[in-house]
Amino acid sequence: MSFPTPLRGVIPPVITPLTPSGEVDVPSLRRLTEHLIGAGVHGLFLLGSSGEAAHLTDGRRRTALEAAVETTAGRVPVLAGVIDTTTARVLERAADAVRAGADALVATAPFYTRTHPVEIADHFRRIRSGAGLPLFAYDIPVAVHTKLPRDVVLDLAADGTLAGLKDSSGDEGSLRRLLVELRRRTPDFSVLTGSELTVDGALLAGADGVVPGLGNVDALGYVRLYEAARAGDWAAARAEQDRLAALFSLTDAGDPAVMGAGSSALGAFKAAAHLLGLIDCPATAAPQVPLDAAAVTRVRTHLAEAGLL
Amino acid sequence: MSFPTPLRGVIPPVITPLTPSGEVDVPSLRRLTEHLIGAGVHGLFLLGSSGEAAHLTDGRRRTALEAAVETTAGRVPVLAGVIDTTTARVLERAADAVRAGADALVATAPFYTRTHPVEIADHFRRIRSGAGLPLFAYDIPVAVHTKLPRDVVLDLAADGTLAGLKDSSGDEGSLRRLLVELRRRTPDFSVLTGSELTVDGALLAGADGVVPGLGNVDALGYVRLYEAARAGDWAAARAEQDRLAALFSLTDAGDPAVMGAGSSALGAFKAAAHLLGLIDCPATAAPQVPLDAAAVTRVRTHLAEAGLL
Amino acid sequence: MSFPTPLRGVIPPVITPLTPSGEVDVPSLRRLTEHLIGAGVHGLFLLGSSGEAAHLTDGRRRTALEAAVETTAGRVPVLAGVIDTTTARVLERAADAVRAGADALVATAPFYTRTHPVEIADHFRRIRSGAGLPLFAYDIPVAVHTKLPRDVVLDLAADGTLAGLKDSSGDEGSLRRLLVELRRRTPDFSVLTGSELTVDGALLAGADGVVPGLGNVDALGYVRLYEAARAGDWAAARAEQDRLAALFSLTDAGDPAVMGAGSSALGAFKAAAHLLGLIDCPATAAPQVPLDAAAVTRVRTHLAEAGLL
Amino acid sequence: MSFPTPLRGVIPPVITPLTPSGEVDVPSLRRLTEHLIGAGVHGLFLLGSSGEAAHLTDGRRRTALEAAVETTAGRVPVLAGVIDTTTARVLERAADAVRAGADALVATAPFYTRTHPVEIADHFRRIRSGAGLPLFAYDIPVAVHTKLPRDVVLDLAADGTLAGLKDSSGDEGSLRRLLVELRRRTPDFSVLTGSELTVDGALLAGADGVVPGLGNVDALGYVRLYEAARAGDWAAARAEQDRLAALFSLTDAGDPAVMGAGSSALGAFKAAAHLLGLIDCPATAAPQVPLDAAAVTRVRTHLAEAGLL
Repeated sequence: MSFPTPLRGVIPPVITPLTPSGEVDVPSLRRLTEHLIGAGVHGLFLLGSSGEAAHLTDGRRRTALEAAVETTAGRVPVLAGVIDTTTARVLERAADAVRAGADALVATAPFYTRTHPVEIADHFRRIRSGAGLPLFAYDIPVAVHTKLPRDVVLDLAADGTLAGLKDSSGDEGSLRRLLVELRRRTPDFSVLTGSELTVDGALLAGADGVVPGLGNVDALGYVRLYEAARAGDWAAARAEQDRLAALFSLTDAGDPAVMGAGSSALGAFKAAAHLLGLIDCPATAAPQVPLDAAAVTRVRTHLAEAGLL
Repeated sequence: MSFPTPLRGVIPPVITPLTPSGEVDVPSLRRLTEHLIGAGVHGLFLLGSSGEAAHLTDGRRRTALEAAVETTAGRVPVLAGVIDTTTARVLERAADAVRAGADALVATAPFYTRTHPVEIADHFRRIRSGAGLPLFAYDIPVAVHTKLPRDVVLDLAADGTLAGLKDSSGDEGSLRRLLVELRRRTPDFSVLTGSELTVDGALLAGADGVVPGLGNVDALGYVRLYEAARAGDWAAARAEQDRLAALFSLTDAGDPAVMGAGSSALGAFKAAAHLLGLIDCPATAAPQVPLDAAAVTRVRTHLAEAGLL
Repeated sequence: MSFPTPLRGVIPPVITPLTPSGEVDVPSLRRLTEHLIGAGVHGLFLLGSSGEAAHLTDGRRRTALEAAVETTAGRVPVLAGVIDTTTARVLERAADAVRAGADALVATAPFYTRTHPVEIADHFRRIRSGAGLPLFAYDIPVAVHTKLPRDVVLDLAADGTLAGLKDSSGDEGSLRRLLVELRRRTPDFSVLTGSELTVDGALLAGADGVVPGLGNVDALGYVRLYEAARAGDWAAARAEQDRLAALFSLTDAGDPAVMGAGSSALGAFKAAAHLLGLIDCPATAAPQVPLDAAAVTRVRTHLAEAGLL
Repeated sequence: MSFPTPLRGVIPPVITPLTPSGEVDVPSLRRLTEHLIGAGVHGLFLLGSSGEAAHLTDGRRRTALEAAVETTAGRVPVLAGVIDTTTARVLERAADAVRAGADALVATAPFYTRTHPVEIADHFRRIRSGAGLPLFAYDIPVAVHTKLPRDVVLDLAADGTLAGLKDSSGDEGSLRRLLVELRRRTPDFSVLTGSELTVDGALLAGADGVVPGLGNVDALGYVRLYEAARAGDWAAARAEQDRLAALFSLTDAGDPAVMGAGSSALGAFKAAAHLLGLIDCPATAAPQVPLDAAAVTRVRTHLAEAGLL
């Protein structure tokens, strides 16, 4: 397939189903992939934060990506996260993704090291030229502890390094300023918000789509939200977003005294997908703390309240 | 006047015009107040961050508030910031504001000290009972370095401590979850966003209004944006917001090598108000660095591009 | 008295005893002041963070400072914190401190606002020229959220703006680099560490003294530590510091589930001073959460283990 | 060799010499290794932050570690960093290090993901049991954005999971409290400071040794500092540390307008090692910005002032 320019729509960051022993559960991943495509999503993003990329060995990353690409069979684009600390390591992840058949790559700024905007720009340029696939920048300060400067994104959009941006910064004001600038300069650049609670506002502001972790749980809801926005029916878009925002409370299912917010959110997505029959096992990768029975009950309640059970 | 429940609309955080020697320029403040009311704003917020409250002595704060209250003469509600480090000091600021005739108070969480959510809640309860006016919580982590927890806001809304929230946290996802909860529980609670670049999305999400620093420069624009949103004309609201987001670039007028972002933004608001004839002198309080001539030229260009000159 | 150049020794940041209703307990403050001077401290720092300055109204600050100055009667220098958000407000606090008879002032960088190093330097210069007393910079990023840049301190030392630095940044590496530079350039500049757990190392590195919150509880211990270091008996200095570091665990007495770290630490200092008979009432200012009986028992145990009961 | 319990002394975090094309320069690494051992260091730490581990592919990490182990030939222990995001990936790095002949492993808390203390403890336990070598925790919040909680370190020391700690947190107060506790409970636990500017104070406080990045430039200086401290000659230790603190200014050689602090520091270490004839090429890994000629001149000046040229 030729890669859409710009990429638009709902592109869930696909969770990576695991077996109890921590291996990739390929049959569950295939089933989930089919389910998402069936729900009408416009692309799939494998090996992102919701995909537990930071927890997966390179081998498991390859296994998951290959399975998703094969199952997808070109029906929608498959974007592959190439999450690693710096350029040389990312280029190895990128080579793996190219071999596995990904349609585009998604890379963050360097992390673990301290970086300067000049270095961040160089990092993306080297990945783009080294890997040979459309490249999305993944702005996720909660993980990499650097906010992508607007000027860097604009420069990399203008010179063709980046095909788009997945903005998980939560900084909607900065995103708005970026959107206003991009529209003037590079209208084919794709802006996808990773902020799954403000998708109606982001689409109203001109974003092209959304990469919602919660889309693993309610892909149909996000597709409806996107379609309503495309049709200009903002009241419907807002109502759908409100329902999804209430559903998002399932990410607080875990007890903050015994686990991190990441364990709780990811555990809840997987517990929900398991309760919905989309995957066989809700396990998250160690050392994340699994949800206990009470937490799973809270997840079930949220699913029921959202009309999903 | 009886205080609106909930307070709705455009409530600019009024800049405090200063003389070259740093005193409050009362005639300019009266002129600006008239201008804003004439533009159709629904309230005025004095002594907030845009009002340089942190830079004003208690005497200057009183002078500014009294002048604004007198000029307003009950045509719209006047909210007064009572910015100080902790409860006992805030209560003194609140007593001043009551004497000056404010209609409501706006207080932050404690700052300088490190606080716990239990202490933050107690802080607001003591201010409410001690001051006797409707109280708004001002969530501004960039200044106080604490994000108001959603649960604290919900509790203080439910028990009547707070009449509303001015959310300058920039955390639109958390705001959305709060709005969904508040609507179920306390629909009279007023949620005002301080994020002036995403007002269309915030109103779509159910916020009641906006406290835009940029409203000192283009109050009419924010009123048009608000009215379009109230009418359900989201395309018009978005277009107005886009224009205002472009105009907001004036806050970058200052050279980051020689001044802070705060000096640049506040200097730009005042330079713009001066260029528009709303105030006599663009001075900001020391030790903020004043804009140089090149920066003022950049501000002028932005005003022209936005159709304001 | 003429102010020592440089100021050296143990200068406790004196807690402000309060009555149950939150007023300054003047008799207790006089008793505590006598006790500290009797223990051999080399100065007193009133209205710092340990003095709950952020919680005291201007009137209470004046009351406390006047009492301490009067009781001290020139036996040791009295430094006064002038903690407020920005320059104009700090100058009012400074005028109060001058009237109360302080020997020197201690000011932080601006807070609540965002500042640039140029603005920070200008802030200190205006305070120094406006107040007319020796001025110490108070580097306390945990409160003001800005680390004083080394270059700014060096410039302000060189031009005579600052008489010294109270370094509560906890950044001992930066402090070492500063000490090496200062010794070359301005040997009369006083460097006081506020890091009460590493005083032996700081004195070894060339610091002139210490401002230990824990000195309210064990002033004799800090005086012994200082004297051992002055005598070059580093083994004795280290042993004393180890004992004091163990005693410092009393600051964890409070339950982190129901109060902030600040409430716990300040509550523990006051509980200890109360148990030692130095003050009449252990109350801290609202909205800080008071220690419960179990926490006070923990404080008592630490005092006993340190040989203070 | 049997691994020392506790490990003591100077253990430089060895830089990884690179060729202009970014490959490991094995001959230079062997020469540097010989130089360091000849200077009397007590161990070598490969693949740490100073070793640019975050910039090296797994293959390059293996090449560097194997070369260092072979050259060292058991004369001193070789510690290997196993820097990766989470447990499963770290275990692969650990397996590589075991195969290469490392004597001990050094692992950080998880990064990129958000973690809870319970998860951090589980992470280290899984690495210890999975890899079968003595394990050091690497506390480096500037890179992983988590400070290792004291209680977690104490628990992992007590149950034998950790053989030691490399503390690059810069939090000397917390380190002192840890040292006081460890001495009571687990005296064989090795505490190594990574804060190369406060080694005299850390050794006075009871730390067992130091992992100084600057030791790549002046290993003899750190060995002298360590030996003076062991001999109780604190005046000599301090003087040596002062000289090294002044030398450390070479890390500021790079222009902060065009490169990050990491690029500047690492570039300066490598430029210095190159000027001293220890390595053939000063290149750092992309996308780090190389030092320009003026910066290299500044490095040379610092070397000369420290008596190294």
